Amino acid sequence: MPAMSPDTISFRSDNDWGAAPAVIDAIAACNGGTARPYGADDWTRRVEARLCEVFERQVGVLLVSTGTAANSISLAAMTPRWGSILCHRHAHIHADECGAPEFFTGGARLVPSASAGSKLDADLLRAELAAGRGDVHCVQPSAASITQCTEDGQVYSPDEVAAISRTCREAGVPLHMDGARFANALVSLGCTPADITWRAGVDVLSFGATKNGAMNAEAIVVFNDELIAQLPYLRKRAGHLLSKMRFIAAQWEAYLADELWLDNARHANAMAARLAQGLSGVRGVGIAAPARTNILFVTLPAALEAGLRERGFDFYGDRWGPGVVRLVTSFGTTTGMVEDLIAAARDIAGETP
Amino acid sequence: MPAMSPDTISFRSDNDWGAAPAVIDAIAACNGGTARPYGADDWTRRVEARLCEVFERQVGVLLVSTGTAANSISLAAMTPRWGSILCHRHAHIHADECGAPEFFTGGARLVPSASAGSKLDADLLRAELAAGRGDVHCVQPSAASITQCTEDGQVYSPDEVAAISRTCREAGVPLHMDGARFANALVSLGCTPADITWRAGVDVLSFGATKNGAMNAEAIVVFNDELIAQLPYLRKRAGHLLSKMRFIAAQWEAYLADELWLDNARHANAMAARLAQGLSGVRGVGIAAPARTNILFVTLPAALEAGLRERGFDFYGDRWGPGVVRLVTSFGTTTGMVEDLIAAARDIAGETP
Amino acid sequence: MPAMSPDTISFRSDNDWGAAPAVIDAIAACNGGTARPYGADDWTRRVEARLCEVFERQVGVLLVSTGTAANSISLAAMTPRWGSILCHRHAHIHADECGAPEFFTGGARLVPSASAGSKLDADLLRAELAAGRGDVHCVQPSAASITQCTEDGQVYSPDEVAAISRTCREAGVPLHMDGARFANALVSLGCTPADITWRAGVDVLSFGATKNGAMNAEAIVVFNDELIAQLPYLRKRAGHLLSKMRFIAAQWEAYLADELWLDNARHANAMAARLAQGLSGVRGVGIAAPARTNILFVTLPAALEAGLRERGFDFYGDRWGPGVVRLVTSFGTTTGMVEDLIAAARDIAGETP
Amino acid sequence: MPAMSPDTISFRSDNDWGAAPAVIDAIAACNGGTARPYGADDWTRRVEARLCEVFERQVGVLLVSTGTAANSISLAAMTPRWGSILCHRHAHIHADECGAPEFFTGGARLVPSASAGSKLDADLLRAELAAGRGDVHCVQPSAASITQCTEDGQVYSPDEVAAISRTCREAGVPLHMDGARFANALVSLGCTPADITWRAGVDVLSFGATKNGAMNAEAIVVFNDELIAQLPYLRKRAGHLLSKMRFIAAQWEAYLADELWLDNARHANAMAARLAQGLSGVRGVGIAAPARTNILFVTLPAALEAGLRERGFDFYGDRWGPGVVRLVTSFGTTTGMVEDLIAAARDIAGETP
Repeated sequence: MPAMSPDTISFRSDNDWGAAPAVIDAIAACNGGTARPYGADDWTRRVEARLCEVFERQVGVLLVSTGTAANSISLAAMTPRWGSILCHRHAHIHADECGAPEFFTGGARLVPSASAGSKLDADLLRAELAAGRGDVHCVQPSAASITQCTEDGQVYSPDEVAAISRTCREAGVPLHMDGARFANALVSLGCTPADITWRAGVDVLSFGATKNGAMNAEAIVVFNDELIAQLPYLRKRAGHLLSKMRFIAAQWEAYLADELWLDNARHANAMAARLAQGLSGVRGVGIAAPARTNILFVTLPAALEAGLRERGFDFYGDRWGPGVVRLVTSFGTTTGMVEDLIAAARDIAGETP
Repeated sequence: MPAMSPDTISFRSDNDWGAAPAVIDAIAACNGGTARPYGADDWTRRVEARLCEVFERQVGVLLVSTGTAANSISLAAMTPRWGSILCHRHAHIHADECGAPEFFTGGARLVPSASAGSKLDADLLRAELAAGRGDVHCVQPSAASITQCTEDGQVYSPDEVAAISRTCREAGVPLHMDGARFANALVSLGCTPADITWRAGVDVLSFGATKNGAMNAEAIVVFNDELIAQLPYLRKRAGHLLSKMRFIAAQWEAYLADELWLDNARHANAMAARLAQGLSGVRGVGIAAPARTNILFVTLPAALEAGLRERGFDFYGDRWGPGVVRLVTSFGTTTGMVEDLIAAARDIAGETP
Repeated sequence: MPAMSPDTISFRSDNDWGAAPAVIDAIAACNGGTARPYGADDWTRRVEARLCEVFERQVGVLLVSTGTAANSISLAAMTPRWGSILCHRHAHIHADECGAPEFFTGGARLVPSASAGSKLDADLLRAELAAGRGDVHCVQPSAASITQCTEDGQVYSPDEVAAISRTCREAGVPLHMDGARFANALVSLGCTPADITWRAGVDVLSFGATKNGAMNAEAIVVFNDELIAQLPYLRKRAGHLLSKMRFIAAQWEAYLADELWLDNARHANAMAARLAQGLSGVRGVGIAAPARTNILFVTLPAALEAGLRERGFDFYGDRWGPGVVRLVTSFGTTTGMVEDLIAAARDIAGETP
Repeated sequence: MPAMSPDTISFRSDNDWGAAPAVIDAIAACNGGTARPYGADDWTRRVEARLCEVFERQVGVLLVSTGTAANSISLAAMTPRWGSILCHRHAHIHADECGAPEFFTGGARLVPSASAGSKLDADLLRAELAAGRGDVHCVQPSAASITQCTEDGQVYSPDEVAAISRTCREAGVPLHMDGARFANALVSLGCTPADITWRAGVDVLSFGATKNGAMNAEAIVVFNDELIAQLPYLRKRAGHLLSKMRFIAAQWEAYLADELWLDNARHANAMAARLAQGLSGVRGVGIAAPARTNILFVTLPAALEAGLRERGFDFYGDRWGPGVVRLVTSFGTTTGMVEDLIAAARDIAGETP
């Protein structure tokens, strides 16, 4: 896989982007001098306190470097080895983590829900969480996981999350939220972090910062006290307790300061909305769903797709059916890039701009 | 555990220190623009090439963020689930990783050698690698692991490593080297990276940079082609494939450029040597072993230990028997700090400086 | 769950039945005197030789006590931890083993095929075995497993097995056959054990005896030499190496002697065929599929189902949709039991016998 | 490894012997007719009730086929994945189960105690259970396991067990007893099953019957209610829930009826005592320790060992130092065999009988 040519304009993934300057500055600023390692430093302590403010309550916090680690460590604390985790078939934990949840849980099973669309349906979930319960021959439904925003950029409303968590409560299982793009969902919903998590019944949140401006900083945020005790051991024995933790914590401090995280997400979402608006008028282009966050699925005529690639625009497009491509924007995506893409599309489609 | 007061002078661990300025600069420099995620970026490619130069041959390279990850992923590729890994009882993988190797290997056993001192003895190892071989009731000796430099700062010579690897070859098992402080060992030995690794029969090296000036950058360096194929999957499903990998790779580039890694290690080692020399003349102080690298074990009279702590010097001292303390120096330890500690020791001991 | 009343006539499962008298006799006969434990006894050796005869070639053999053990140990030898195993969604390994394959493999994933009916389709399998191949974010398709006869009593022809194994070969993965009811399939097909296993490309067979007249005797039969070496360790560390193994081996000896296994299966299949024939004439009764082995799925009017239960006939009927029940016959099922059930059905349906 | 010649007289292991005739009879008697599978049968229910009588209280019971399964399933319910299990270095779980406890627990560590002799020492255990507690870098001491009788035939008194369990209680960890030869210990101690288990603070007992007259029947007996719920799932997903469970239960019924288990153990112990007495008078023979149960360690002159083997006596002797052999008696060992061995020893040693 060749690296992108220097003049590629990436709409591939928010992972393609680096970190926000403020995050880099924070890393540089926390350097110098000595600090207790393994998270016993002041930066980590401040981030823990800050996250309590953000979520308006006492929360347990474990910082890690990847979303896969955040998800898998969380699920390992929520699920017995003979358990199953209900999730959407497109959930990142199911489709894109090479069996990490199975590894961390000691062999629990991810059960893809029959839910249509990209969100779990509470009623289907009710039946799925009842399957085989108490039957020793069956894996035992033990947790559910939802992605907020979803892998295709859609969002669960607080009511939708609450309906799912009620179903989980009835079944006696906890609810995990994969918030790799939590900020993008939040600003799209216009609600508070508390509203969309613990107030709606979420037990553990994988709170991602990396995709939205951090370098390699994720947090496990725990709202269920019973799950906290084992997490430090699960993190350590997975090699995810960093010695120089202050460098992760400093990223978080910068990320949560001055609304950087929300601003970055607002910007990324706005770029996707503009893309959707601009492309919707181009001949032959279909917009799969309204742009709710920073991910847009679009159907392009073959010539248009090829033309855009030729002009240096890069995006994923080989896995969702003929002509379907995914455009992802980021805090780093500029209005110029978006307008250029729209203009190029119009041009290729033979329209006068 | 309170954070250190601002005026603490740490000889606790090389993990207490931040990163070398050049490493921070490299992180900042690689930011901006987009790059392929998950290690498909140019920085990672250059580091892979650079490590081939450093080791004077083709090597397999996987970058990760922690030494525990590097060790455990390596061992998981080397050991079947019913295997055992021979190591020193003080080996970090045995004493300080909360069972990570057991987790990653799927339940293989770490077998602490009966070797005295802090290094594996090839003759004892021969017997230990033969124990239970072919007996289905016994875990099967499947790998050996040595730490270079050791947990107490001693070094294996190339001949010593070669003797151990011959023993491993005879037993048909691979040899792992935990090089969390590889640079410190290397400059102490005055040999090449190749001499002390693959030329001496090492199959996989956990090459640490974090303790010696990086922020969170370690590398698995593979000299045994048979072990390479499974490593990317083992890394991914452990959550150790970072999306924005360029930020790890950039640290490595800076670390290996302009001899930064060797200079840092030389400095740290020199600081420990000066400490040893200065303290050896202080009444009541015993030096456990010659300072070979950046770790020094010293026996202090109780009043002297207490006095040093009172004056703000911090170090570990509660786990190796009465009066034994560990002093660790780093690339960041200054001559002033060392001289201050020596002077304080003399002063407390009632000596005229 | 209450035990069955003494006068219940079970068509619930072949597991409801005890062992064939010859098997019990063999257990009694091998008692007395001493023998090497853990399978180093003469009975085990003879069974190994006998299985080579049965399969007309050298085979690896490991005796165990349960089908779940046979399946899971086999799959653990065939699949890396980051692998996936393609199987039918109704496969016993997927639906009825409480995650045992996940446990034994160290977290590999069972991927239910989209195949309709109860058998894997080679063409669908081809696509499913290609999914995510080489993509480090995805579990890697690493094995396929088919059940012969299937969970609903259907059989794969040698050609069908060969088509599947060709697909597996093309994808570079081995093929496992769960033969919990292997004898029932074999006599239904009228082919040799070799024809339906290794000659058709099967790598490992879980050969069941328990359901067809043994007490607790299953065998892992290995046709692929590369998979043999690790099996003894996988068996031992799962607690499935029995000390007094001769008692399992003696069951196998009796089972394979004098065509007991084939006779038992022929009888059970014949009982199912007679049931199908007899019931097909009863008003309101639907036969889901021709009786190929000893499992019959039947649709019954509610009154008929209730009436049969009232008269002491027991069978599973609460999981396949309204009115669908499963009738399973066994070596112990008598013609009288079958005729009684048919007569009762006619009587309840208001027909003159 | 050749099978024993027909005229070998085995003192190798109680595993060399078959089953008591009453056990075989019970197996035959429970055959015929149908019964609910997977332990929902009347035999299993009666055994559960009988074990409550035997232990004079409500107990949880899970029947399995091997001691390794009983031990490993028990330990998996007692220990988190990041835990450690303190045991004697000669404990069967550590020395002879190929890493089964590590497998079942998901990678917990067996930590061999520094205790001398063959029993755990409560004071040493106290320190060992405190090691690393609460330190996230260390495996967490989570359980202790003792073998009753020990691997060398010694017994823990109720007071000794109580001292160990008090130590466990203080450390907040449960106590497991591996009772592979529980009956031999019991009759040696002359106490009740309750006295030596739950009244002395044992949480879970692996209660063995196989070595003392059953065919393949072991039981997990649970005195700690908190540990019960997960055991059925741990058993099932390890493939240790037998379909035709009545055949295991019937063995247990016979074993516990009419004091068969105690009589068998008394006989075996008496045979070992006679051996010790008879051999102690033979020139050059050393008795390692008083015969407390059915295992005797003896030091033999080389000529005597060779001579006994020549005359057909078989025993283990290659693993405990020069001249040390292990003699194990069983319910099947006859007085004649014992007297023959003694007479042969005297004869070889050149003594007039």
